[in-house]
Amino acid sequence: MRILVPIDITEPKTRLAGLLSYPERRAFIQAMLRDVLTAINAAGDHDPLVLSTKPIDVQAEVEVDSLPLSAAVNTRLSEELLPTAVVMSDLPLITPQVIRHLVNQPNDVTISPGTGGGTNAVVVRTEQFFVDYHGLSYCDHQKIARDAGLTVSKFDSYRLSVDIDEPADLIEVLIHNTGDAREWLHNAGFALECTDVQRGRMVVSRHGQSVR
Amino acid sequence: MRILVPIDITEPKTRLAGLLSYPERRAFIQAMLRDVLTAINAAGDHDPLVLSTKPIDVQAEVEVDSLPLSAAVNTRLSEELLPTAVVMSDLPLITPQVIRHLVNQPNDVTISPGTGGGTNAVVVRTEQFFVDYHGLSYCDHQKIARDAGLTVSKFDSYRLSVDIDEPADLIEVLIHNTGDAREWLHNAGFALECTDVQRGRMVVSRHGQSVR
Repeated sequence: MRILVPIDITEPKTRLAGLLSYPERRAFIQAMLRDVLTAINAAGDHDPLVLSTKPIDVQAEVEVDSLPLSAAVNTRLSEELLPTAVVMSDLPLITPQVIRHLVNQPNDVTISPGTGGGTNAVVVRTEQFFVDYHGLSYCDHQKIARDAGLTVSKFDSYRLSVDIDEPADLIEVLIHNTGDAREWLHNAGFALECTDVQRGRMVVSRHGQSVR
Repeated sequence: MRILVPIDITEPKTRLAGLLSYPERRAFIQAMLRDVLTAINAAGDHDPLVLSTKPIDVQAEVEVDSLPLSAAVNTRLSEELLPTAVVMSDLPLITPQVIRHLVNQPNDVTISPGTGGGTNAVVVRTEQFFVDYHGLSYCDHQKIARDAGLTVSKFDSYRLSVDIDEPADLIEVLIHNTGDAREWLHNAGFALECTDVQRGRMVVSRHGQSVR
C-alpha cells in the first residue's frame, strides 16, 4: 500500500523548544521518521512516500510540499491510487505488526486516534473521503465519513496513539522504542529516573536533571 | 473469566486535587468504575470482583482490602481459579470489544501498558506469575514472566492505555467515553474548548475556564 508519511521540518516540535534546540529537534524528528520508515519496510511490500516541508536526507522517496498538512495529503488522496494510508512521522512506538493490522482493516476508512483527539494514522480506500487535521480530527474524520455514507474502522492501538509533542511524551520513547529515536535521546543525555521511590513514579531526566 | 477491578477510595486521584474536591474525586472515580463494570458485563459471561480500599456502593461483588495494590491482587491470584484478569477501575475508554480481545490472548500472561510505563490490565493464566505495580511495571511484569519462563502477550490498546490521573487526561474522557464518566464531568461543568483556533488545539475547561 502507498503510505504517506508527512513531516514538518520547518517548525519541528515547537512544544519541545524548552528542552531541545532547533538543530536537536530537527535531528530528533528525523530519528523518529527513520524508525517509522523501518517499521513500514519491515511490515511488507509497502510503498512509503515522505511528504516533507523542506528537502530531507532519508532512505525513502521524498516529495517536498509547502502546502498545509491537510491540503498536502488530500492532493495525494485524489492523485494516487487508492487505498492510501497516512501515518505520521512522530510515532516512534510503531511496529511492523501494528502497520500490518492497520492496513488490513476492512472498511472504507480506518482512523487511529492520537492523544488529545488527533488522528495519527488513517487508511483511505475511497475518493469520497478527505482529511482535515485541524481540531478534534478523530471526531471530524468520523463525521466526514458518516456524511459521505462510508464505513469506518476505529483502530485501537496504543503504539499509534503516542505522538511525541511534549516533554512528558519522551518517557514513552525511552520505554517502548528500540530504534533510532531512543538511541538519539540516550546520546543527547536523556534517561529514565525514579523521583518518587515510594510511589515508583518515573520521570525523564537530561544529564541527571528532571525534565518538566 | 474472573476479572479483578481494584479501586482506591481512600486517596482517590490525588493528582486531580487541584481541580476536584475530595467528594468530587470520590464521585468521579465511582463513575469511571461503573463504566468499567458496564463494559465487563457487556463483554460476555465474566465474573467481576471489585477490590476496594473501603466499602463502596456499586452493582457488583465487592471485597474490601486495605493491603497495598500488588499484595491485594497477588493474594487473589493464588486463591482464585486462574485465569484471572486485573483491569484498573480508572480506564473509562474501555469497551466490551477491548475486554473480549484482552481475555482471548493466548499466552501465559497478557500485559496491557498504560501511559508512563504502568500496567493497566493483565491476564494471568499460571500461578508462576505475580504482579508488582511499583515503578515501570510494564517492563517489570515482562521481566517477572521471562524469569519464570512464561510466554507473554503484549496487548496494544489505546483504550486500555488511558488511565485518568491528571487534569490533561480528562480530555480523553470527554472525547471517547460515552457513559457515566463523561456525564459526570459534563454535570460538573467540564467541557472541551478550542483555545488556539489556528492550530485547532483543544483543551478542557470548567465553567468556561481552561483547566491546566
